[in-house]
Amino acid sequence: MQNQITSLQNTKIKSLIQLKEKSRIRKKEGCFIIEGKREIKLALKGNYTIKQLYYCPSIVSDVEISSIIDNHDNQIDLYEITMEIYQKLAYRTTTEGIIAVAKSKDLEIKNLVLSSKKPLILIAEAPEKPGNIGALLRTADAAQLDAVLIANPKTDIYNPNIIRSSVGCLFTNTIATGTSKDIINFLKKQKINIYGAALQTSVNYHTQDYTKPTAIVVGTEATGLSEDFLQSTTQNIKIPMSGVIDSMNVSVAAGILIFEAKRQRNFID
Amino acid sequence: MQNQITSLQNTKIKSLIQLKEKSRIRKKEGCFIIEGKREIKLALKGNYTIKQLYYCPSIVSDVEISSIIDNHDNQIDLYEITMEIYQKLAYRTTTEGIIAVAKSKDLEIKNLVLSSKKPLILIAEAPEKPGNIGALLRTADAAQLDAVLIANPKTDIYNPNIIRSSVGCLFTNTIATGTSKDIINFLKKQKINIYGAALQTSVNYHTQDYTKPTAIVVGTEATGLSEDFLQSTTQNIKIPMSGVIDSMNVSVAAGILIFEAKRQRNFID
Repeated sequence: MQNQITSLQNTKIKSLIQLKEKSRIRKKEGCFIIEGKREIKLALKGNYTIKQLYYCPSIVSDVEISSIIDNHDNQIDLYEITMEIYQKLAYRTTTEGIIAVAKSKDLEIKNLVLSSKKPLILIAEAPEKPGNIGALLRTADAAQLDAVLIANPKTDIYNPNIIRSSVGCLFTNTIATGTSKDIINFLKKQKINIYGAALQTSVNYHTQDYTKPTAIVVGTEATGLSEDFLQSTTQNIKIPMSGVIDSMNVSVAAGILIFEAKRQRNFID
Repeated sequence: MQNQITSLQNTKIKSLIQLKEKSRIRKKEGCFIIEGKREIKLALKGNYTIKQLYYCPSIVSDVEISSIIDNHDNQIDLYEITMEIYQKLAYRTTTEGIIAVAKSKDLEIKNLVLSSKKPLILIAEAPEKPGNIGALLRTADAAQLDAVLIANPKTDIYNPNIIRSSVGCLFTNTIATGTSKDIINFLKKQKINIYGAALQTSVNYHTQDYTKPTAIVVGTEATGLSEDFLQSTTQNIKIPMSGVIDSMNVSVAAGILIFEAKRQRNFID
């Protein structure tokens, strides 16, 4: 038999709202929330542990729930919630009907193992806007990058806006986080060339050979790369611009650089 | 002597709020609002007519106002507004202190004149999200495209969110709008190759020659290109993807395609 929750005052519901809204609570609890069928399926596929599943039976059927949790159901606590509670919790108020609590992964750079001998990696240093991080993760998925590294993260990677704007690509990419220094050390140890998107002593991006082990690092739109990275790049690269403003969106710029590398690699690896 | 407005009930202020919030009013009045010093300067540079300028003297000085309106001041009505009124009107509540009412341009495709013999053009069909349109306009500025065409626009191009997210690139690009059919007719008459970002009978984007007169057209993330465009493209092109989700942000995908064209053109034209 399943549990039914009908009150917004239920402690589990209050805790869900906290997980949704507060990065501090997510860190303390080691949990985060995932909304949407596709996103939850992708998280399971990406070896995330779902602890609890809350669903609204007037939106999503038992059959659908069973198909989503598949063989994982022995570990997952299921709760039926009312429409009122669901609408309080959800972004997309009518289409999905399902919210999960998942266990955060330890994403520390020191645990990252790369299987490719000539990896292609994207590093975003101190990215701020969840929408940009989501777009970066979508590009990284499409390019099947070996890893996406978030250096000096300013935003909790399990922020619901990042999950949403990544359309689930948070779960399909290999992600690691760390200080810029730790990430630079990791790359140097692995003998991976570091290409910094920065104007200082830079060359045009398309003149470089990205078929070797390659990390492309982008900074913030406001301040660019940190001194740590600027002093550690193999080569700084720039996209030649000829407009009036010359300020591309950071996820667009990263996409152009990554797919130039993919083009050079014949889109194979 | 300048006019001072101290009441939120002032009819001019009420009209400003309507211009900000309602596309219908913008169309009826043939006007729109621009917030921010840089944006207003760029609009003037892009030959937009500023009719009125509202500024908050406790944020922006008379000297700054003079430098912005420069030689245009004979046509511009100046109004001092209070901090309370400014905060009611502005997105960025403290940094700018200045809002303009500008005259909309007639952007119909039939009036577009291209000066280049081998133009490079971006077409966005039915784009919806102001953030994506803004990012497209930033890329178009950086690539100094000959034109950005908005086919079947779903959003008023003078929407304040587009102006904001384009960081003023709305005013630095040559923009035209029209139905997809009108835009296709325009391109065919000018003998411009049309490359559609669409999977149907497509080839990899990097195999095509974009040094000839080229238009790259992207559709919506949800539904792609319309039948009108699908039946009119010279060639459909795709970005090879190898991930789990393979759903790139539309402005990232457009950036990759545009800069492949720029690379082939040696970033010259």
